[in-house]
Amino acid sequence: MRIHVQNPADEAIFPITPRQWSDAIARAPDMAGLQASFASDDTGYAQAMREAEVLVTWTRIVHERFPKGALPGVAPKLRMIFCTSAGLDRLAPFDWLPDDVLLLNNRGTHAAKAGEYGIMALLMLANNIPFFADRQREGQWQPRFASVLAGRTVCVVGLGSLGGAVAQRAKQFGMRVIGVRSSARPHEACERVVAQDALDSVLPEAEFLVLACPLTPQTQGLLDRRRMELLPRGAKLVNIGRGALWDQEAVCDLLDAGHLNGAVTDVAVPEPLPPEHRAWRTPGLFVTPHMSSDDPGTYNDRSLDILFENIRALRSGQPCPNRVEPGRGY
Amino acid sequence: MRIHVQNPADEAIFPITPRQWSDAIARAPDMAGLQASFASDDTGYAQAMREAEVLVTWTRIVHERFPKGALPGVAPKLRMIFCTSAGLDRLAPFDWLPDDVLLLNNRGTHAAKAGEYGIMALLMLANNIPFFADRQREGQWQPRFASVLAGRTVCVVGLGSLGGAVAQRAKQFGMRVIGVRSSARPHEACERVVAQDALDSVLPEAEFLVLACPLTPQTQGLLDRRRMELLPRGAKLVNIGRGALWDQEAVCDLLDAGHLNGAVTDVAVPEPLPPEHRAWRTPGLFVTPHMSSDDPGTYNDRSLDILFENIRALRSGQPCPNRVEPGRGY
Repeated sequence: MRIHVQNPADEAIFPITPRQWSDAIARAPDMAGLQASFASDDTGYAQAMREAEVLVTWTRIVHERFPKGALPGVAPKLRMIFCTSAGLDRLAPFDWLPDDVLLLNNRGTHAAKAGEYGIMALLMLANNIPFFADRQREGQWQPRFASVLAGRTVCVVGLGSLGGAVAQRAKQFGMRVIGVRSSARPHEACERVVAQDALDSVLPEAEFLVLACPLTPQTQGLLDRRRMELLPRGAKLVNIGRGALWDQEAVCDLLDAGHLNGAVTDVAVPEPLPPEHRAWRTPGLFVTPHMSSDDPGTYNDRSLDILFENIRALRSGQPCPNRVEPGRGY
Repeated sequence: MRIHVQNPADEAIFPITPRQWSDAIARAPDMAGLQASFASDDTGYAQAMREAEVLVTWTRIVHERFPKGALPGVAPKLRMIFCTSAGLDRLAPFDWLPDDVLLLNNRGTHAAKAGEYGIMALLMLANNIPFFADRQREGQWQPRFASVLAGRTVCVVGLGSLGGAVAQRAKQFGMRVIGVRSSARPHEACERVVAQDALDSVLPEAEFLVLACPLTPQTQGLLDRRRMELLPRGAKLVNIGRGALWDQEAVCDLLDAGHLNGAVTDVAVPEPLPPEHRAWRTPGLFVTPHMSSDDPGTYNDRSLDILFENIRALRSGQPCPNRVEPGRGY
């Protein structure tokens, strides 16, 4: 089976290297027969795709090429595209994807790192770190005392690998975790799980709320102003999903008004946030630049292991665990 | 037995209330015979101290009154002073303390809260949060990617209730923990413990270092410039002990020079830090205003439980677990 890895030309930190590939093969001897090629330029791409059955690449490369109709003809033998991101929202709608090509995302790679970022963000909010960052700008020593997380309630929206990892960490710190996902199916870290259409019913209990779901037509703008106003006064928000999951202007307004106590976000609209954007200067809002879930020390190793799990499933006629369902959007 | 609680006149958050006292008695029925009085003014103090056997109060109240010679005569029946702080360094030297009066600190109250602050600080440093706080001031979206804590080395200096709690949390996140304390006695969360005089030998391994020991003549200036230079390039520091445990100017210099990658400190010299102090503006230094270990939700309940443990020990002729040894300083 021929696999082609197309790295972006400008990628300095996360390109998948032949060395990482051979290390991954060493961990998965049943994959030793795979033939791999690597490129980061157009010539290498065009040449490899004539024979490739699996393309391993970045979402933005797929976004640049395929939705514009470049797929048919270019890659006659292609059976599988493995994107190294978890969220493929920028590739929607998926009408460009031929029925006989599987699209896989990289869910699972980000869990450990996202869990750490998530519990860090909850601890930062509990400890008023965004407030102290604002005071540091002014040189003001102004104590505020804070309680531990144990016994407090967090609502985690999305229980995939990101949200599930955050829920696990929150439980480990003694928090009461309420999960929200497409169905009310239970989750081991959650005291209770409700379906997304019951979200309103749990918001009044949510001192902390974490957005960790994929961006789809069903979740776009999910945490709107009305729902934020259902949260208790002093609520604290974390967003490690996508900036369009919430009403970013409403977050700023409700922090300004004091209804929200603080927020830590790793995502924004647009990205990068321009220097003049109010989000940089909204009191109580701490912004990080979309780095919460990508661990350069383990990212590619974990990604290749996940790719191999899916090739293994394909070979044995099982469903691929990372398959994106076009109708669902993740 | 007569107990007098002297609250500071200006204390809004942490005064010990009669209600908290009666709740604590309900948890400890063997203490029902204690007679408690409460005051926050001079008249109430002077009156109560004529009969009090135990004084429960703030370190700063003891500091204001006793080292200046006000103890003899004022409190003829006094046997025990319970200070509601863990660090009593400002009361040293302890030559003002009569031999027949026990001085107790409040070690143990702070463990859960300090453990959470400590792991938060380690996660903030691993995730470059001080760097992002600096970028937020400038409105600059500038990603830096970071690895998880698992497998990385932290050196925790001080394994009392603060440092022990941080070491436990670090171990829970898979870190390799090296402990440093007055003796090399093992600690369950530490792969290895060395005595303070061997500190230099472990510094080259310490990507992360946490200061969590009491301030005594033996620990003053412990982390000096020479020792910071023994740390690996890119090392990250946390201080939840006292500002005088490290050379604060050297921390700023070595952050400026890039030898240190970041620091989170909850303590400073002086406190409060004046607005013009360079620490507020040193790149990579995140300052919080001495709030790391005081949980207003549980502080007084836990403090009274600890007081009762010590009264119980006194009654049964056992050593009081919170006794401060004047010669040792904690």
